[in-house]
Amino acid sequence: MRKITMLVHGGAGPDSEFIKRNIEGYKKGLQEAVNAGYRILEEGGSALDAVEASVNYLEDNELFNAGRGSALNEKAEVEMDASIMDGKSVNCGAVAAVRNVKNPVTLARAIMDKTKHIYLCETGALEFAQKIGLKLMPDAYFITNHAFEQYTSAMEEEANTLEHAGEYQVRKKEHGTVGAVAVDREGNVAAATSTGGLENKVPGRIADSSMTGVGSYANNKTCAVSSTGDGEYMMRSVISFHVSAVMQYKGLQLKEACDYLMNEELKDVEGDMGIIAVDPFGNFAFEFNSERMHRAWRSSEGEQGVGIYKE
Amino acid sequence: MRKITMLVHGGAGPDSEFIKRNIEGYKKGLQEAVNAGYRILEEGGSALDAVEASVNYLEDNELFNAGRGSALNEKAEVEMDASIMDGKSVNCGAVAAVRNVKNPVTLARAIMDKTKHIYLCETGALEFAQKIGLKLMPDAYFITNHAFEQYTSAMEEEANTLEHAGEYQVRKKEHGTVGAVAVDREGNVAAATSTGGLENKVPGRIADSSMTGVGSYANNKTCAVSSTGDGEYMMRSVISFHVSAVMQYKGLQLKEACDYLMNEELKDVEGDMGIIAVDPFGNFAFEFNSERMHRAWRSSEGEQGVGIYKE
Repeated sequence: MRKITMLVHGGAGPDSEFIKRNIEGYKKGLQEAVNAGYRILEEGGSALDAVEASVNYLEDNELFNAGRGSALNEKAEVEMDASIMDGKSVNCGAVAAVRNVKNPVTLARAIMDKTKHIYLCETGALEFAQKIGLKLMPDAYFITNHAFEQYTSAMEEEANTLEHAGEYQVRKKEHGTVGAVAVDREGNVAAATSTGGLENKVPGRIADSSMTGVGSYANNKTCAVSSTGDGEYMMRSVISFHVSAVMQYKGLQLKEACDYLMNEELKDVEGDMGIIAVDPFGNFAFEFNSERMHRAWRSSEGEQGVGIYKE
Repeated sequence: MRKITMLVHGGAGPDSEFIKRNIEGYKKGLQEAVNAGYRILEEGGSALDAVEASVNYLEDNELFNAGRGSALNEKAEVEMDASIMDGKSVNCGAVAAVRNVKNPVTLARAIMDKTKHIYLCETGALEFAQKIGLKLMPDAYFITNHAFEQYTSAMEEEANTLEHAGEYQVRKKEHGTVGAVAVDREGNVAAATSTGGLENKVPGRIADSSMTGVGSYANNKTCAVSSTGDGEYMMRSVISFHVSAVMQYKGLQLKEACDYLMNEELKDVEGDMGIIAVDPFGNFAFEFNSERMHRAWRSSEGEQGVGIYKE
């Protein structure tokens, strides 16, 4: 039997009092998320179904910045972004700045499966979700006390900061973006990523998480990757596809490719960045340059664990 | 003096009666677009300013599917996408599904220069454009007879076609997406791309043209690339960044890298695809797998031309 492997992440960034206070809840959430996808792989299901299930779990868990618990934009509203990619067909689906959809990654998958397009945003994305009968929730469902506290403190901080036009400001955020990668019994890989985006973002801001090649990338020729962190930096380096390109064109194996990308090619990037990755043989890797990356992993060779900090 | 080079494209795809009928107008438009950017380079201006100027010209020219003359979506409305990237700073800006902004690529640049983000869509993008006083135009400005004819025939064709869920249908379109790449006297490269997107698209559909790494990519380490064609295919292969990755990791020069990507790596892709590219030394290349790619080029070493078909 081929090796199956499931990895999830729940965001990379600085540590916080909120994280310390909720550390057991985060660990339990990560374990349950990885189990949700792993069970599907164990029963012979596809990597694509597995990553969707793991991300759905994290979207529904309000500790994470995706689905319920999403960060609020400048107007204190929730707009969400997600993407999914199937390494077998190299097909993908994505959604940006969508509201009221309970599980944005499931909408991304429906865009992949049921439209002639890959990527929809805002009004059109919501109309499509309504048309196909996806589960919608009122604004109140998505908004948590913690997200509102983050919004309030971000607004205060911004009021106290001079605007530097044209210079991207790294503001240390909790970055709870979630994602999953998997390889199934057939050796097919898949990746999925979902986020509420940056706290206090400009309305309509599209997150890297929704961009094929940045938030998610999957190709059976190389690997599947999901990323998290300061999206504006990860967009510029096309981080998920970049891992695949390093494997394909530089000839590195999965772990070496992730290590090379994060610790050599992108070592001078100021932003927080984290990646999780698998290859079709069940090998897996994660790398992050931040204080912590919420993560969990499980394979059919008995590898398993949950981690938050560098350890 | 370092070599300066300017290239523009006006879309890759199948030939059409409309193109044949307007061939002189297209050639004149491409020549004027390349001149608009070239003049800036000649006067010592930046590649970034040059690509913006060339794309602005093409957005204003109603023969091309960007700005005025944009394709209409399923509701017969105009929603536009654009991106710009500076190879010196590796910074970028992008906008998706925006309405009423006369020059979407200028909005993409303003998002790069004046916000903490890279990528905005729809309502938030329009609000930001209004806030900074960008030129807006009424819906009627953008809509041309030709775009409405295309819309009508696409609607009829769709009514006669069975829907194949989950299977992307290649419908041969005119693909008038526009783009430019340039290298300036300092050896800085830049890329910009702008489009009205696919005729008869689902409202809210985000075009590849607006995605950093797909529509546009620029990095002084390697090259600047702008792409055009069947976006859903180009997203999956992250085509613009892909050229850069092939140069960096496979060690190919610009022309070889473009040739390798289009004629080997992506040779089995069914969709229409075209790219234009420059490197910091003023070398340039273009490749397309379609019947035609509208294009023009001009360099300080006397190279110049305008082309539509393979010749």
